[in-house]
This record gives sequence, C-alpha cells and structure tokens, in this order.
Amino acid sequence: MVIELMKSHASVRDYKEKQLTREEVSELIQAAQHAATSHFVQAYSVVWVTDPEKRKKLGELSRNSKQMEGAGAVFLMCADYNRLKHAGEIQGENIVFDQAENLLVAVTDVGLLAQNLALAAESKGYGICYIGGVRNNMEAISELVGLPEGVFPVYGLTVGVPNEGNEVKPRLPVEAILHENEYDEAKYETLLPEYDMAIQQYYERRSTNQKSETWTQQMANFLKRPHRQDLKGVLAKKGFLFK
Amino acid sequence: MVIELMKSHASVRDYKEKQLTREEVSELIQAAQHAATSHFVQAYSVVWVTDPEKRKKLGELSRNSKQMEGAGAVFLMCADYNRLKHAGEIQGENIVFDQAENLLVAVTDVGLLAQNLALAAESKGYGICYIGGVRNNMEAISELVGLPEGVFPVYGLTVGVPNEGNEVKPRLPVEAILHENEYDEAKYETLLPEYDMAIQQYYERRSTNQKSETWTQQMANFLKRPHRQDLKGVLAKKGFLFK
Repeated sequence: MVIELMKSHASVRDYKEKQLTREEVSELIQAAQHAATSHFVQAYSVVWVTDPEKRKKLGELSRNSKQMEGAGAVFLMCADYNRLKHAGEIQGENIVFDQAENLLVAVTDVGLLAQNLALAAESKGYGICYIGGVRNNMEAISELVGLPEGVFPVYGLTVGVPNEGNEVKPRLPVEAILHENEYDEAKYETLLPEYDMAIQQYYERRSTNQKSETWTQQMANFLKRPHRQDLKGVLAKKGFLFK
Repeated sequence: MVIELMKSHASVRDYKEKQLTREEVSELIQAAQHAATSHFVQAYSVVWVTDPEKRKKLGELSRNSKQMEGAGAVFLMCADYNRLKHAGEIQGENIVFDQAENLLVAVTDVGLLAQNLALAAESKGYGICYIGGVRNNMEAISELVGLPEGVFPVYGLTVGVPNEGNEVKPRLPVEAILHENEYDEAKYETLLPEYDMAIQQYYERRSTNQKSETWTQQMANFLKRPHRQDLKGVLAKKGFLFK
C-alpha cells in the first residue's frame, strides 16, 4: 500500500483554497522527523509561510506565484546548523560546519525529512510539489523569513487539496538506475534511446500540455548552461562551504 | 498507516542472513524512483553490492563491516551526472554540472529516492540503516565499484530482516523545527534544555547501550571538530564543485 502510494505520485501545482490547520501541519512534521538523521544532528528547520504578504513576495522571488499563493500550505525546507550552534553554546563549544561534509549532511537530512513529509501529506489525500525556484533568490528569501547564519532554504514544498489530476510520468527503467557490483555506463547506449521513445510517447499522448520531446533533448537543453551561479557565494555568506 | 509506519522507524544494524532477491530489489527501486526529481534529471544511481569480496572490502573502507557483510542487501546511493553526460552526448551537447546548484540537486534527488526506498522496504517488514561511513573513503569506494566521473556515493543503505528491535529515539519537539513566517532562534533557549532532559532520560532507560548524555553534549562533542576534510577535494576530482 505504501508502495502503491509512492507509485501514484505526480506533482500537483493547482490547489483548492482550503488551508491546512496547525494540527495537521504538526502531525505531518512530527511524522517526517522520524526519518533517519546523520549522527542525530537533525540539521533542518521548516518555515511555514502563512502571512499573505510574505506568500505573495515569496511567489515573486521564487517565480512561482500560483503555487506560493494558492497552496493549502507553503513550507520552506531549510538546512539548519543554527540550532546546532546554540547546542554548542549551551556546552561552551564552538561548532564547525564549514566543510563540504556538513553541506552533504544537512541537504540529506532535509531530503529525508521532506520526502517523509510529502508522502505523509499524500497519504492523507493532499497533493504536493517541491519548489526548487526558491534557489532563484536564496538571499532575498532568507531575509523575508529572517533566516540567520547557518540556515538556508534548499527548496519549498507546497501542499494542498488537488484541483487537478496529473498523470504519473514514466521514470527511467530500473536497469538504468541499478548497477550490480560495478557501475556500467555502456548500457546507457541502448537504454537511453529506448527511454527517449517512451517519454516522447508519454508527452505526445498525455491529457494536457502535450509536446514532442525526448528525455535526452530536455536534459541536454537544460544542462548545456550553468544554473544559479550565485549559489556558491550565497552559501558561503551563510557560513557553509568551503573548506 | 503510512504515518504510523514512519513513526515506528528505528535504524536496524543487525540482520538475519536472508538476502533480498532481484525481484524484491527491483520492486523497491522502482517504487523509490517515483519520488519527485528536480527538472526530471533523475540524478542518481544505486549500486547493489552482492559480491562477498566487495562487501568485505566495503565494510573495511566504510568502517562498518557488520552491516556491510551481514545485511540482506547493500546499496550505495550515488549522486549521478554521468548518465546526464551521456544524454548530452546523444544530443551533441556538453553538459555542465560543476556548480554548487548541481551538487544540491543531485544530493536532494538521492535523498528523496533513498527515503522512498527505505520506507518501501520498511513497509515490507525489512529494517534499514543509512551508512554515512561510505564518506570515510569515498575515493577508494568509488574505485571498488568503478564509479566514473560525475558519480559519487552519498551514503550506503543496508536492508534486511531485523535481528533486533530498537526503540524509537525521541526527536526534537515539533516547535523546535517548525517556524511560522519568521525564523525564531530565541525559542531554543528553553526548548533545547527541555529536550536534553528528555533525551538523557531516554538514553538512561533504553533496553540496550544505556548511557547518560544530553543532545547538546552529543552535538557539541561531535561538531567541535571538522569532519571528512578531504571531501571537497574528492568531489572536485569527480567533477563536482566548485564554481
């Protein structure tokens, strides 16, 4: 049943007006917190943005007004070493989080928390969408919700009652993801063109927003240019990276 | 029910001998792949290590022999831009993944996949444990399973029939994680000492491995020193970071 729930996931970008209650949000966060966390650091925070003015501004900054204003709940999923700094101070110690290791740990902790949160919400009939667009203006968004040193939003997560039903997008075949004992890149030569055909067919036939594009076309067009080149600098200002 | 499953999570480090079958592994990976992925990049691979010699070596390199040799399945959860390089080549484009943005995307993609995989396994009665120890020797482990440029193991994940039942560890209270509209660090002053008492009580009373330690003590002791200082250099060799 959990597996069936996972396999039915499709991002929802259009929501009904109903807002989640504080009790519902607490229940979801609490369940999510039970995900594993590296050395028990729990290096995450969630900022629940309920203020309409802030949601409007957040929509502009993340270039995603429809979801940021229209969802039933808007969360900023944050990497957080600030709380750990306080933990250190209580013990009279200065904690260190400027290594690449700390970035991997925090982004992983946020990821495990977020996926539990998403799935918990979906198990209650809500739709969800991750919003990478908060990284378009990480600094301004941090100011908007007062994120101190050691805290940055990795992505947003919107939750709400679905006002649309999207088809499930076909993923890469398991053989393309799973390697046994030895990474095998030779197999991509046949697997990727096969997958391209499956994806093209999906895009051509889906009920809305039809197009004719393959996966390798999408990827090549998207990744031939660097993205969010300011990010390293913003992370450094936040105290992350890079030693 | 999904929420109950999440809340019952405790890492399992001792497993019965039964090995997962290829069908089971495929089912778990396929379910996990349905997690959201940034711009549909699917920037992950899973190396399933079945060879006993490699598992022995992996146990030494990750300083985690018991789990790496004893689990029902051992997975290396890898960030992967190599497959995307192949996608670019099919389209005659050179893809770029040397930005901090790409690292965040790949580590996030792996996190969402991994948490789905973990929960899917737990829903079938298996126990799981994340193994951050693979970052102790990321380069040697990459060589062991032939990871090419653009691919690195973020952590391991062991799965198997539990040979032990661990208590669920109390997490930080929801109020310490959840901020509304504005990040509030003032509240840690009371929340962290309260949590310290709860954790100390848990450690003192649990059925095995009892100790008397608070959370802030653990964190201060662990984070007063930098960890895995070689990591930035290893990531750079893999083509990640840092522009």
